[in-house]
Amino acid sequence: MIETQIKVLEKVKLKNPTCFIGLPGIGHIGRIAVEYLVHETKAKKFAELYSPYFFPFIIVHENRIHTLRNEFYWTRQKGKDYIFLIGDVQTYDPKGHYEVAGKILDLLKGMGCKKVITIGGFSTGNVSEKPKVFAVLNSKEQEAEFKGSGVEMKVSGQIATVVGASGLLPGLADLYGMAGYCLLGETSGFPIITDPTAASAVLRVIQKIYKINFDLVKLKAKVEAMHDFIKKLHDIQSQAMDQLQKTKGKEDLKYIG
Amino acid sequence: MIETQIKVLEKVKLKNPTCFIGLPGIGHIGRIAVEYLVHETKAKKFAELYSPYFFPFIIVHENRIHTLRNEFYWTRQKGKDYIFLIGDVQTYDPKGHYEVAGKILDLLKGMGCKKVITIGGFSTGNVSEKPKVFAVLNSKEQEAEFKGSGVEMKVSGQIATVVGASGLLPGLADLYGMAGYCLLGETSGFPIITDPTAASAVLRVIQKIYKINFDLVKLKAKVEAMHDFIKKLHDIQSQAMDQLQKTKGKEDLKYIG
Amino acid sequence: MIETQIKVLEKVKLKNPTCFIGLPGIGHIGRIAVEYLVHETKAKKFAELYSPYFFPFIIVHENRIHTLRNEFYWTRQKGKDYIFLIGDVQTYDPKGHYEVAGKILDLLKGMGCKKVITIGGFSTGNVSEKPKVFAVLNSKEQEAEFKGSGVEMKVSGQIATVVGASGLLPGLADLYGMAGYCLLGETSGFPIITDPTAASAVLRVIQKIYKINFDLVKLKAKVEAMHDFIKKLHDIQSQAMDQLQKTKGKEDLKYIG
Amino acid sequence: MIETQIKVLEKVKLKNPTCFIGLPGIGHIGRIAVEYLVHETKAKKFAELYSPYFFPFIIVHENRIHTLRNEFYWTRQKGKDYIFLIGDVQTYDPKGHYEVAGKILDLLKGMGCKKVITIGGFSTGNVSEKPKVFAVLNSKEQEAEFKGSGVEMKVSGQIATVVGASGLLPGLADLYGMAGYCLLGETSGFPIITDPTAASAVLRVIQKIYKINFDLVKLKAKVEAMHDFIKKLHDIQSQAMDQLQKTKGKEDLKYIG
Repeated sequence: MIETQIKVLEKVKLKNPTCFIGLPGIGHIGRIAVEYLVHETKAKKFAELYSPYFFPFIIVHENRIHTLRNEFYWTRQKGKDYIFLIGDVQTYDPKGHYEVAGKILDLLKGMGCKKVITIGGFSTGNVSEKPKVFAVLNSKEQEAEFKGSGVEMKVSGQIATVVGASGLLPGLADLYGMAGYCLLGETSGFPIITDPTAASAVLRVIQKIYKINFDLVKLKAKVEAMHDFIKKLHDIQSQAMDQLQKTKGKEDLKYIG
Repeated sequence: MIETQIKVLEKVKLKNPTCFIGLPGIGHIGRIAVEYLVHETKAKKFAELYSPYFFPFIIVHENRIHTLRNEFYWTRQKGKDYIFLIGDVQTYDPKGHYEVAGKILDLLKGMGCKKVITIGGFSTGNVSEKPKVFAVLNSKEQEAEFKGSGVEMKVSGQIATVVGASGLLPGLADLYGMAGYCLLGETSGFPIITDPTAASAVLRVIQKIYKINFDLVKLKAKVEAMHDFIKKLHDIQSQAMDQLQKTKGKEDLKYIG
Repeated sequence: MIETQIKVLEKVKLKNPTCFIGLPGIGHIGRIAVEYLVHETKAKKFAELYSPYFFPFIIVHENRIHTLRNEFYWTRQKGKDYIFLIGDVQTYDPKGHYEVAGKILDLLKGMGCKKVITIGGFSTGNVSEKPKVFAVLNSKEQEAEFKGSGVEMKVSGQIATVVGASGLLPGLADLYGMAGYCLLGETSGFPIITDPTAASAVLRVIQKIYKINFDLVKLKAKVEAMHDFIKKLHDIQSQAMDQLQKTKGKEDLKYIG
Repeated sequence: MIETQIKVLEKVKLKNPTCFIGLPGIGHIGRIAVEYLVHETKAKKFAELYSPYFFPFIIVHENRIHTLRNEFYWTRQKGKDYIFLIGDVQTYDPKGHYEVAGKILDLLKGMGCKKVITIGGFSTGNVSEKPKVFAVLNSKEQEAEFKGSGVEMKVSGQIATVVGASGLLPGLADLYGMAGYCLLGETSGFPIITDPTAASAVLRVIQKIYKINFDLVKLKAKVEAMHDFIKKLHDIQSQAMDQLQKTKGKEDLKYIG
C-alpha cells in the first residue's frame, strides 16, 4: 500500500450530505461524539480508510487482528443525509495528515457533500461543568447558522492553530468548494482519556442546529462501553510514539565509495 | 528504484496456493521455519522483492555482492500448492512496511492465493522446552482448522500488537479478500540470534494442519548452517540501525532568503 | 493531497513575465518587499499553492481558518508583465523544497516566464543604515543589467550557499531554460522579525532596473501593518519546528514476527 | 521536482559502453579517479542528474549559482565506448540512494551499457605507499578479467558492506541484466579530503584492464586543482549533515481535535 486508500463497502447515493468527523484527539471528544451519532441514528458503514501513514502494526482485539483504520457511515434523518467519519487513529506524519485529509475530501466531494465539520477538543485548563463550544469557520456565510446556539465564534484571541486532519479537513475543504468548520468542546487538558462532558456539550449544539434525531441519555453508558477499546488504542499508540521519538532519525550512514 | 519491486524470475500457475511467510524477527523463528520448509520440499524460487525501504547498502558474502531482498518459492505437495516467502530484511521505515506488504499481497492475490500465514516469535520471558504456539486470526472461520492442534487462540490478554509486515500482511489480506493469520512461537526474548526450538514448535503445528511432507530431524543441522549468514545480516543491520538512530532527523536548515 | 498543488483562480495570458518571489526567511525581507510590490502595483491574485510539505495545521486568523499557502499575483507595468509570488511558509522538509520549487517553475514556464528572481536576506552581523544588496546569478549574461546599480556581484568569498526554495528556484530555473538570480539584502542577523531597511534597499535596486511604478514612502507603514500577521506565523512555526526537533525520528519499532 | 531527473543535453548513440562511476566518498577516490579519466580522454558531457534527495541548497561558486548534480560524460577509446559519471554529492537519505541508483541504471540500460563499475575507497587504517585495490564482483564471470592485475578478490573477510549508490549501483545492475563491481582503493581512513595515492592505484588497475589511453603524470597537479572545490562541497555538506543531525525528527505535534 503506497497511498492512503479507501475501500468502499457499499455504493450509496446521497443528496448533498453534511459530514461530521470525529478523529482521535484531546479527550477523544470527536470520536465519542460522532460514534454516539452513529449509534443513535443506526448509521450504516459504507467505507473504510487505510493508510501507510498509520502505525505499522495491527492490534489484537478480542482474539482477532484489528487493522488500524477510519470508518465512514451514513444515515438519513428527516429527509436530510449525513455522513459520519470516525477513526482509530490519526497519522504520526506531517505529510500524512495532508494525504489522509485529501483522500477523505476526494470521497466526500464525489458524494456531493457540501459541508465538512470536524469535532474536537480545545484545552483551556479549566474544569467546567458547562464547557463552552467554539467554532472556527472557513467562511463568513456560516455565521448565521450559529445564531442563538451559544457557540463562541470570536476565537482568534484564544485558539492559534488546529493541528492535524481536524484542522486540515475544513481548511482544505475550501479548495474543493465545500464549507467547513471545527467545532471544539472546552476540555481541561488534564490527562484524561475520554471527556464525555465536553462531547455532550458539542452534541447539544449539533442537536440545536441539525435535523438529527437523538437524545443524550445513553451517552454516559456508551462512553463507558467505548472507554476500554479507546484506552487500549491510546496506550499502544502513545507507546509507539515514544519509541518513534526515542529513535532519532533518518541517516548517518557513512559510505565506502 | 522509486517503489518496492518484485522481479518475477519464472511465471508459475498455481491453484489457490497457501502462502507461508518468514521474515526476520525475534529469534528469526519465521525465517528459520520457512527456509526449512523451502529446503525440505525442494521448493523453487520464482521471484525476488527489492525495496527502496531496505537499508541502502549491499552485503559482501562469499566474495560477491549480495543485494538485500525477499525471495518467493513455490512447491506442490500432495496436489496442494504452497508459496514460501523468506527475507533477509524487513524495512526500517513505518511507511515502508505498508508498501512492502501491499506489493506482496498484490502478487499473491494475482496468483490466486487464498490464505496468508506469517510466522514469528512472541517473547514471553520464559525459557521453555516445549514452547507454546499462538495464532492471531483475521476471521472466525479459521478457528476450526486449529482444533486439537494445541495452538493457543485466546491471545487478547497476552498479545497487544504484531508489528511490521508480519502483522500487516494478514491484517491487510482481508482487504484483498484473503484469509490470514500470524503463527507465533513462544520464545524467551533473551538476546539470541536464532531459536530453533520455537521454530520447531511452529513447524510441528504446520505438519499437523497442512499437507506438507517434511520431517524435523535435519532442522538442528540446517539452523546451524544458516546461523552464520543470519548472524552476519543481523549484526550489520543492528549496526546500521544504531547509526540511523544516532542521527537525529530531518532538517534544521536555516535559510537565507 | 499527495503532491504540492497549485489552484489556478483565474487563467491569465502574460507576455514573457518576470517573476519576483518573496518567501519567509531572515528578516522576512523577501516577503515584505514582494508584498509591497503587490500592494503598490495593485497586482491581482491568480493562483494559490498548497503543499503536503507545509506544516499540518491551520492558523486561526480573524476568527477564520487560514490554510498555509503561497500566493501568485500578476500586474502589467508600462507594457511589461510581472508575476509576484509571496508565501506564508516554506516547507520544513529537504525534499519538499525541491517539490515546491519544481511546481512553481512548472507554472512559470507554462506562462512564458523568462526570469525568476528570489528576494531574501543575507546576514552579515553588521547593523547598517545603508545595507548592501548582493546578487547571485545563474548566468554571466545577467551581469549587464546590474551595471551602475551598486549591487555587489563578487559574492563567492562571502556567500557559500543559499538554502531552501530561494536558492533552488533560480538554481533549477536553468533546467527550464529560464534565467534566475537571488537578490539578497544585507541584514544584521539579530533576531528581528522584519527588517524594512534591508527590504527597502532591495526595492530601490528593483526600481532602478525594472519598469515597475512604485515609491517607497508607504513602506514603513505597510511593514507595520504586516508585522502582526508575520510575527504570528513566525511564532507558531518556530514553535512547531521546535516540537518537530524534540521528536527524534522515524522508527525504532521492535517487532514480533 | 518530485523525482530524481536526468536532463539529457545531447543524445548520443554508443556501442555497449562500460560505465565508470565516481561519487563522493572516503578520500574522494572515485570522484578524483573518474574526473581524471574525463579530463585525460577529453570526454564530453551529455547529461546531468538532479535529485530532490540532494541537499536543498545551491552552492555559490565563482560568483555563480551551482546547483548540486551528477554529470554523465562519454568517450570512444580504440573503438570502445565509455561512460563516466561523476558527482558533487550523494543523497543524505536511505530511500534516495535507491531512487538515484535506479534512475542511473535506467539511463545506462537504455544506452546499451553492459558493465557498471563504481570506484571508491576502503579504509583499512594503514597508511601505505602502495595501496591495495579490492574488487567486489556481482558475478563469477568477472573474475577472469582481473587475472594478473594484483587486485584482491578474496574480500569477504575484510569488507562487510558497501554503502550508498556505490554499492547499490552494481548490486541492482544485476536486476537490469548488467554486470557490475566495486573497485575500492585502500585508504587510511584518516580525515583527509582527497587521497590521490589511492586514486592512482585504482587508475593503474583500469589502465591494465581497459583500452583507455591515459597516463598518470598529471594526476597530482589535477588533484590539487580539484581540491579546493571538492573541499568546499565537502565542508558545506558536512555542516549541513550536522544541522540535519541536530534536528531530531519528524513530529511530535499534539493536536487539538
